Amino acid sequence: MPELAADDLIHRTLAGERVPLARALSWVENEHPGATALLDACFGRTGRAHRLGITGPPGAGKSTLVTQLAKEYRARGETVAVVAVDPTSPFSGGALLGDRVRMNELSGDEGIFIRSMATRGSMGGLAVHTAQACDVLDAAGFGRILIETVGVGQSELEVAQTADTTAVVLVPESGDAVQAMKAGIMEIADVFAVNKADREGADRAAQAIRSALHLRARTSEWDIPVQLTVASQGEGVRELVDHFERHLAWLADSGTLERRRRRRLEQQLETLMRERLWEEFRARVSARRWDEAVAALGERRETPNQVATRLTEADGSE
Amino acid sequence: MPELAADDLIHRTLAGERVPLARALSWVENEHPGATALLDACFGRTGRAHRLGITGPPGAGKSTLVTQLAKEYRARGETVAVVAVDPTSPFSGGALLGDRVRMNELSGDEGIFIRSMATRGSMGGLAVHTAQACDVLDAAGFGRILIETVGVGQSELEVAQTADTTAVVLVPESGDAVQAMKAGIMEIADVFAVNKADREGADRAAQAIRSALHLRARTSEWDIPVQLTVASQGEGVRELVDHFERHLAWLADSGTLERRRRRRLEQQLETLMRERLWEEFRARVSARRWDEAVAALGERRETPNQVATRLTEADGSE
Repeated sequence: MPELAADDLIHRTLAGERVPLARALSWVENEHPGATALLDACFGRTGRAHRLGITGPPGAGKSTLVTQLAKEYRARGETVAVVAVDPTSPFSGGALLGDRVRMNELSGDEGIFIRSMATRGSMGGLAVHTAQACDVLDAAGFGRILIETVGVGQSELEVAQTADTTAVVLVPESGDAVQAMKAGIMEIADVFAVNKADREGADRAAQAIRSALHLRARTSEWDIPVQLTVASQGEGVRELVDHFERHLAWLADSGTLERRRRRRLEQQLETLMRERLWEEFRARVSARRWDEAVAALGERRETPNQVATRLTEADGSE
Repeated sequence: MPELAADDLIHRTLAGERVPLARALSWVENEHPGATALLDACFGRTGRAHRLGITGPPGAGKSTLVTQLAKEYRARGETVAVVAVDPTSPFSGGALLGDRVRMNELSGDEGIFIRSMATRGSMGGLAVHTAQACDVLDAAGFGRILIETVGVGQSELEVAQTADTTAVVLVPESGDAVQAMKAGIMEIADVFAVNKADREGADRAAQAIRSALHLRARTSEWDIPVQLTVASQGEGVRELVDHFERHLAWLADSGTLERRRRRRLEQQLETLMRERLWEEFRARVSARRWDEAVAALGERRETPNQVATRLTEADGSE
């Protein structure tokens, strides 16, 4: 695609054209100068899509499950965007391969759009860019956005938390179910899937999760379902989507949807403000002064705390 | 230990007393009000310890290896602090168990101090707290600080990057070696260990790493060694420590140590400044105005970008 004027790109993205949309998502991911105008134009049209986070340990079969979920939603007449968040870990892999398989299986359907997001730039960048990408896809008119993350780190958890509904995918034989209970994953799961449930121990794993759920203090009226799935066979997928749709209805009826989205917007604003404040500060303080401050630290003439206080107080007095 | 006056705690921490030191590290981890004075007092005495980051995928045997490294350093007359960074992942586990085993094996030696750091608070908190804990341990006089991280996410990588020397631990049979090459781990590794080298394929794995190292453009005069180890038998541990000591000498001689530490201090200052700027901003902007801004977003009357611009410009004009 030849270089498009920003207005044209924005206009065609909002009209749901695929090629401009792909370009728009790259703008977001690469922090292109045009991204601000793009996001400004998208923002007013956001809030319509149901955003679903699908997370779980590597090897749980999330990629296959998400493919099946996308198909099921399509069968129900929904348009679907898949945002596959590439693991930030240098030690895991496979996401790209899974993605390519999926691409082949789903390509050719205009109602499905698939995008991978990779880690780039500063910490937190991934969660920010993923949320922004979802805003663009939402504004472009996709009704369901599936955000797939490999839940192996804090930042992936934060990505999952940008969703309205979060599903945690586990497998029968891993000790993950128990680990998950311990580590606070309970707090983010709205739905559990025990995938690869044709393997031994699936019922036992599901039961262990249910028991743990019963033990904890109820924090809402929502009963967290535990669904057995065999994604490779499409088993349990319809039921899982039913749970998602019921959860969406509950979110809306209970006022939880609005509260969650309000909190998400607040976090988004905080992140943006923090970045602005830092940029402003660096524009105010000369490179020379900054370098001198770092040198003072290197020579242990001042502590970081002292330097920060001095730079804050002297603000603007240069 | 009864509540100590801050001055007393700082004084005794700097003297290397173990119980006050443990308390001081809790101050850092919990962002206790006394932490600032503590870190200020410590800062002037930092820069003496050699900080080693030991990272790698879960199951590579890092815990056992770090225990053996600590013993080897002790045999050489060095004091050693171990900072075990708890995986932030809700899906992995085991760090605590490994830690308890290690505790038993190393306890009773006054020249060794072991501390686990868990994820808490905001994103980036772990890397910040780990760096601060290392400052305290450095000021308390430990000569070698081993920072053990499970390399499963961006934040763990950042923890590893607070070290002077970073060792990446892999195992023979995983495809990790190849993945590591792909994913940019090469850029952070100063030393490779192929642990569990009594398993098949260890030589092949080491050779694969060496080949990959030869392919890439040399960015420094340091030849990255690839060491076979069997941590459970103590094999290769002496050689690994030799590599670390050679690397430290090279770092110092080449001026790299100073450059790396300067960059680390600059990052530390940036993080602190960002936090200060945000705190200042929140102190300036009333809760009412902030809530109104979030409400405007919720109703799509303004975009995040517009709100951020308005709040920045109106700064102080309340």
